[in-house]
Amino acid sequence: MGIENVTHIDNIRLSDDGAVVILDQSLLPTETKYLTLRSRQALFEAISTLRVRGAPAIGIFAAYAVYVLSNQTKAASFDAFYTDFSENADYLDASRPTAVNLRKALDRMDRVVKKSSGQPIPQILEAMRAEALAIHREDMDMCLRISEYGLELVKDGDGVLTHCNAGPLATSRYGTGLGTLFLARERGVALHAFCDETRPLLQGARLTTYELQKAGIDCTLICDNMASIVMKEGKINAVFVGCDRVAANGDTANKIGTSGVAILAKYYSIPFYVFCPSSSIDFTCKTGGDIKIELRQPEEIREKFFEKPMALPEVKCYNPAFDVTDNALITAIVTEKGICRAPYTESLAEAFMK
Amino acid sequence: MGIENVTHIDNIRLSDDGAVVILDQSLLPTETKYLTLRSRQALFEAISTLRVRGAPAIGIFAAYAVYVLSNQTKAASFDAFYTDFSENADYLDASRPTAVNLRKALDRMDRVVKKSSGQPIPQILEAMRAEALAIHREDMDMCLRISEYGLELVKDGDGVLTHCNAGPLATSRYGTGLGTLFLARERGVALHAFCDETRPLLQGARLTTYELQKAGIDCTLICDNMASIVMKEGKINAVFVGCDRVAANGDTANKIGTSGVAILAKYYSIPFYVFCPSSSIDFTCKTGGDIKIELRQPEEIREKFFEKPMALPEVKCYNPAFDVTDNALITAIVTEKGICRAPYTESLAEAFMK
Repeated sequence: MGIENVTHIDNIRLSDDGAVVILDQSLLPTETKYLTLRSRQALFEAISTLRVRGAPAIGIFAAYAVYVLSNQTKAASFDAFYTDFSENADYLDASRPTAVNLRKALDRMDRVVKKSSGQPIPQILEAMRAEALAIHREDMDMCLRISEYGLELVKDGDGVLTHCNAGPLATSRYGTGLGTLFLARERGVALHAFCDETRPLLQGARLTTYELQKAGIDCTLICDNMASIVMKEGKINAVFVGCDRVAANGDTANKIGTSGVAILAKYYSIPFYVFCPSSSIDFTCKTGGDIKIELRQPEEIREKFFEKPMALPEVKCYNPAFDVTDNALITAIVTEKGICRAPYTESLAEAFMK
Repeated sequence: MGIENVTHIDNIRLSDDGAVVILDQSLLPTETKYLTLRSRQALFEAISTLRVRGAPAIGIFAAYAVYVLSNQTKAASFDAFYTDFSENADYLDASRPTAVNLRKALDRMDRVVKKSSGQPIPQILEAMRAEALAIHREDMDMCLRISEYGLELVKDGDGVLTHCNAGPLATSRYGTGLGTLFLARERGVALHAFCDETRPLLQGARLTTYELQKAGIDCTLICDNMASIVMKEGKINAVFVGCDRVAANGDTANKIGTSGVAILAKYYSIPFYVFCPSSSIDFTCKTGGDIKIELRQPEEIREKFFEKPMALPEVKCYNPAFDVTDNALITAIVTEKGICRAPYTESLAEAFMK
């Protein structure tokens, strides 16, 4: 297989005729299908069913989505326009509760709309469009900077454990948790990835190994419960994960299972790194206890993806989509402003609040 | 749903006409199918493809299997009979490397054959049949005793985390790791189980929740990577697992992921119990480092059970079937002779070697 330029994958874009076009991630790796979305329901559903996923990608998508919906407005006054906008933003915000990027992107759009209140509606729409494109462009920039900092944390020949997917599909361009791997490849630094498959929705198997394989990066897929043995066998020099929301004290909400991987890394004395653009930091959450964890449907565990059900239909399932990793388990949080270390309340504030 | 007597499930039996009849566990929970096995290949394949699985069940099955094959002999002399027997035993022994019960059961059959060397072949066969039935009966007895000891470790209202399947299907009658749950139910002690689904072959989802649900025991299915969050949320008072081979020092080989669960339990200060009949202890292994870990096919991770592949076909997979849990992570090893605690080299020897 040739090396494909996955860091330029077109996962989300605004079309010329006022729609959001996405690569449907729920069908990968066996089917590559683009969707053109314009209705409220379709845009909401794309997030809630993980056709678009990954905290940064959700933020970018939400900015485009609320612009696309505002573009369809029949409002003649600013008040009517803003009422429509707010309804659409609140509706989209309810699609998933844990990733802070969603709310943050919508808040940025809200500020732009309010700031443009004195202008005619076409100008407001143009300002919204520019802001959505800026969110996208800034994410690309943040990903590249984070990946550069990540390169300081590894050396040629290292094994890196990944959980879930924090690559180009989840972000824009390089990704957060995976960005360092792509950049290393470009710079001739050989890393080997072990990828947790990440049940129940298998983003590690379906998306991470897909991206790494296409980029010609050496990778091995494991089940989530194999992380302990590969660490024990000395195959792992560092753990790289993304995040959905980081509290002011560094507690990190990320895909379910991340906290378990962090505990294993601590036990085996392996550094555990969170790759986090500033858009994923929520200074309004003092600790991880303030972060709402999304509970999803039992069918994702019992039935989804399988040829036939894997448990009796009456079996109860508990299906939290995320968990919170205590800051004490995190070796460093890698941001676009540099590598932050404990105590995070100080180091994150220092990097972003001054 | 009514309460079904799963502790009397007929998972393995010797038929009157010289075959081993098993419930095909690879088809559960959606299909209940019994298989009648008499050929070497079919008997070997039943173990290697996990139609019969669980260390104690494999031991019982192997004893019946080698008897059934010996019963088909055309040998007229003891030497010819013993040559056939040994070939069959070695062949069956190669079906799975990690569970010690397989080799131990075949060794017991070997001793019986040798001891009967002066007798006519029909008498040797009768002695073999009696020994296989004794192995089965002893396992039932061990499971019940282990479960009684397990009851000392829990109280009404406790939550118990399980990994893989160590219930009636994996053993005979009560099971090892799950036996306490069934006995508690009979005695009116309410326990709630959280069951790791146990990738890649999903024995926790397919078998453990099946057995618990049928017995009317409150249970909740989770993905393996959710063990950390349920522990953190205070839902778990104890972890109960079975084992495939326990070394003299207490290091325990069990289903892949067990060592990770043990590390999480240690981190959250939750007791971690290994339920272990003496047939699973291997005093010839000084430590877990002496235990051979079976590596299985990549297709089990990438494709098996799924409607379509979950990773590109060229993606490498690492698929160890077991891992070793260090004795330092084990709160106690529960055996039919009582509850052994560290240092295990002394406590296990004390219980079984004198």
